[in-house]
Amino acid sequence: MNSYDFSLEMSVRDYECDMQGIVNNAVYQNYLEHTRHECMKSVGIDFKRFTMMGIHFVVVRAEIDYKSALTSGDSFRVGLRLIKESRLRLVFYQDIHRLPDEKLVLKAKITATALNQQGRPEIPKEVENVVRAHFAGT
Amino acid sequence: MNSYDFSLEMSVRDYECDMQGIVNNAVYQNYLEHTRHECMKSVGIDFKRFTMMGIHFVVVRAEIDYKSALTSGDSFRVGLRLIKESRLRLVFYQDIHRLPDEKLVLKAKITATALNQQGRPEIPKEVENVVRAHFAGT
Amino acid sequence: MNSYDFSLEMSVRDYECDMQGIVNNAVYQNYLEHTRHECMKSVGIDFKRFTMMGIHFVVVRAEIDYKSALTSGDSFRVGLRLIKESRLRLVFYQDIHRLPDEKLVLKAKITATALNQQGRPEIPKEVENVVRAHFAGT
Amino acid sequence: MNSYDFSLEMSVRDYECDMQGIVNNAVYQNYLEHTRHECMKSVGIDFKRFTMMGIHFVVVRAEIDYKSALTSGDSFRVGLRLIKESRLRLVFYQDIHRLPDEKLVLKAKITATALNQQGRPEIPKEVENVVRAHFAGT
Repeated sequence: MNSYDFSLEMSVRDYECDMQGIVNNAVYQNYLEHTRHECMKSVGIDFKRFTMMGIHFVVVRAEIDYKSALTSGDSFRVGLRLIKESRLRLVFYQDIHRLPDEKLVLKAKITATALNQQGRPEIPKEVENVVRAHFAGT
Repeated sequence: MNSYDFSLEMSVRDYECDMQGIVNNAVYQNYLEHTRHECMKSVGIDFKRFTMMGIHFVVVRAEIDYKSALTSGDSFRVGLRLIKESRLRLVFYQDIHRLPDEKLVLKAKITATALNQQGRPEIPKEVENVVRAHFAGT
Repeated sequence: MNSYDFSLEMSVRDYECDMQGIVNNAVYQNYLEHTRHECMKSVGIDFKRFTMMGIHFVVVRAEIDYKSALTSGDSFRVGLRLIKESRLRLVFYQDIHRLPDEKLVLKAKITATALNQQGRPEIPKEVENVVRAHFAGT
Repeated sequence: MNSYDFSLEMSVRDYECDMQGIVNNAVYQNYLEHTRHECMKSVGIDFKRFTMMGIHFVVVRAEIDYKSALTSGDSFRVGLRLIKESRLRLVFYQDIHRLPDEKLVLKAKITATALNQQGRPEIPKEVENVVRAHFAGT
């Protein structure tokens, strides 16, 4: 079906559901962030290591279309495609599908950049090389 | 400056900051949601009461532009304008400014609808009346 | 080594770490709760189902000894023993060990009860039977 | 009534409630931590500043008795008394009461210490002096 650069399966934890009995909107951003970090880790880019070097990855824009809700007991998969959109912008297309019925939960487009030790936007060379080597959409 | 229909002042709590020492991306959605709920409560629309009636307010799309970060010790104000964009869509324009220097933290456009007891999109009459009475942008 | 009635392996997610770079104290309670719910689910007791029936499982006392901290990238296992301490009290002994080195992270004793539809403490018969059948420590 | 060294009023935010419609257990730890940090800040001890100096305040034991639940719309006050229990241990007694009816929500005893730059327990001199100057129970 869809082809993703990376995907991660998780399950809803009850404390992530709000009084409506469904996963709270903000929690999906946690799922998306965790998947981005795991994706980067899978190609050797460790978020914590860069943070300790004073290099901060930051989200500059998030667009999220919520299509259906996850609830207690649900499993789901977050699929991710990464595209280097410009010199300073990485774009993560991320979809969440419920498992096993593959119902679409949300579609997101997350635009990120990195800030160097001086707080100025700059994608570290190491990240650039990894993105070029592992991700199609450049 | 900007004119908002409603605004709410809050302060960052340390547990909301992540290992980068700044407020985690997902937490801003908590701030935005809390402000929407307080805004609605200020005009008599209680989120919990509707939830217990089986009417669910849901976000269908979130667009968030992150401009600068909040950190431990910061205070901020969330300003909100509400517009009924179509028969089934309420749009909340929400900006966060740091206090007291008014530095822009983020701009968000949150599109919401409500689902009736049958799970079908329908803005309750009571909400429609309140929006018409209290908010300019119809 | 230790013998648990149930155990669950998880990994730290970066958003669970606070500005100290370690998992925030409150997050361990999430881990503990998730493990209790998964344990109960493994023997047929679904938290959500009981909630919808108006039966609420509640924690009445938590004692947590924090021994060492988890950080970004860590995996860990939550082990659990369940004991029916009295007619109205279930006690969950829960330990977290880091993996793979088995370093002790915390030891917890969580005392819970259930509230019936009238809000009065009462362990549902179904839960009592399951506890008697599956857990040694009665 | 009770006499506290410090107290802080807050309100429940809807995203803090879980599918039972009440504040999730772990969230109370957030309330308690935030109150401790605000208390310390009120006497000149800034958590972030110490973190950046490599000095980490850590909770070593939490005992929490949950007496009643907070729900959407509730306001509450966290009262705190601080006692230096031993050379290396600060104890925070923290109670939460619902407002305005003063119903007891929980009682907590949080034992904390600090780790110096070498990761060894040591209460910074500055903190010791402040505790002696501002808090009775030494």
